[in-house]
Amino acid sequence: MGLVRYRRVGESAAEWGWMEGDVLHEVEGDPLAGFETVSRARGDYTLLAPTLPTKIVAVGRNYAAHAQELGNPLPERPLLFLKPPSAVIADGEEIFFPPVGEEFHYEAELAVVIGRVASRVSEEEAAGHILGYTCANDLTIRDLQRDDGQWARAKGFDGSCPLGREISPELPGDARVRGYLNGELVQDGEVSDMVFGVERLVSYISQAITLLPGDVVLTGTPAGVGELRPGDEFRVEVTGVSELANPVAGRR
Amino acid sequence: MGLVRYRRVGESAAEWGWMEGDVLHEVEGDPLAGFETVSRARGDYTLLAPTLPTKIVAVGRNYAAHAQELGNPLPERPLLFLKPPSAVIADGEEIFFPPVGEEFHYEAELAVVIGRVASRVSEEEAAGHILGYTCANDLTIRDLQRDDGQWARAKGFDGSCPLGREISPELPGDARVRGYLNGELVQDGEVSDMVFGVERLVSYISQAITLLPGDVVLTGTPAGVGELRPGDEFRVEVTGVSELANPVAGRR
Repeated sequence: MGLVRYRRVGESAAEWGWMEGDVLHEVEGDPLAGFETVSRARGDYTLLAPTLPTKIVAVGRNYAAHAQELGNPLPERPLLFLKPPSAVIADGEEIFFPPVGEEFHYEAELAVVIGRVASRVSEEEAAGHILGYTCANDLTIRDLQRDDGQWARAKGFDGSCPLGREISPELPGDARVRGYLNGELVQDGEVSDMVFGVERLVSYISQAITLLPGDVVLTGTPAGVGELRPGDEFRVEVTGVSELANPVAGRR
Repeated sequence: MGLVRYRRVGESAAEWGWMEGDVLHEVEGDPLAGFETVSRARGDYTLLAPTLPTKIVAVGRNYAAHAQELGNPLPERPLLFLKPPSAVIADGEEIFFPPVGEEFHYEAELAVVIGRVASRVSEEEAAGHILGYTCANDLTIRDLQRDDGQWARAKGFDGSCPLGREISPELPGDARVRGYLNGELVQDGEVSDMVFGVERLVSYISQAITLLPGDVVLTGTPAGVGELRPGDEFRVEVTGVSELANPVAGRR
């Protein structure tokens, strides 16, 4: 249950909707401010990524066990990096094996979607600037991440940020971030185990970088990362929030 | 002489224009595709940044003498990092001393503005995807750049990318990138001295990250970087292309 974006067959404009089970409702008003559902949507439609961010601010090494598995120390403050809007793809879309690099990794994550401009907000104020939550795959070319120094190519290549189907207004306190490779559970972390929590991250980022409505904050991946190959399917689940599944295709 | 964006006093929409000396002409058509100037613009207006990029892809250590002055080796391939759209400010706007960090540096640069979608283009094809050229200041919080690991905060903070007044269609072969601190020439490099040239950079980036119309590529700064303090003015000039001057204000 949550906010989605969709496009009707034969039309070019994207519309906001509210998904309940398999039923799509039309939304009236601006979901980034406040809205009502007015009626069930009719006709054929395609679901799109649930937001079109102007930027994605992501956080590295935010689960102790994942930092450990890659041999990295825990950061003293959030380790921030950027992904561009061209990284976003939707639930169900193909992940193309990247055209550069060889060691291609999945990273299941909780994603935060901003609802109100957040500039230098406190941890206490942060919740009031959040529209909701979804899941994401912080796809990473591990060999480029090691060799490039800065991660623009390794984590910012086209299609490197699949986003979950819907934006859920609530984040359950016991939410888990799970990743399934070809149906097998390979990542399973508790959101409450994050080194820096959601409000801390939004507040910290907003001290230097203003977050705009629709912008996305990726909160880091739990332990269990590993390689993707053409033919694989990777599914991300944040329990009680959203799901996301993408097949992996060859190089384009 | 070049493309500008402006807003008429009392109106909210931005319009494209063509500036010749101090005369602003109205533009008909899409400047990212092809356009004509139709008449002289009337009324009061404010010049805006000449493009609203979806992303800024920047290059580090692209002049040998600058890599040397910071004690860095020359990279074997372009060292890429990202700045978000929220980094852009216009010619004449105030640079606020950043709210985090202490050692605040200017970096005068040549900026390339994309005109046609560039995805995996060759060096030979790259020129056909470029709208034109302007100048930029790749503002950097040097202490955060050293300490953060990734440069999202150090080079992506609000207002960290002042862009030149206009986009010039041509880049003279002998263009120089100059920076003036309070009127004194402190940076003066030849574009032809760049380690990786414009076409090489556009081609290289586009192998991993699709560049969209309006996107900006920053090409690195020549030697002579140094600190800014509230009360300073920094001016960037790419000779034959564009200029940019911003006063430095205190922390907001």
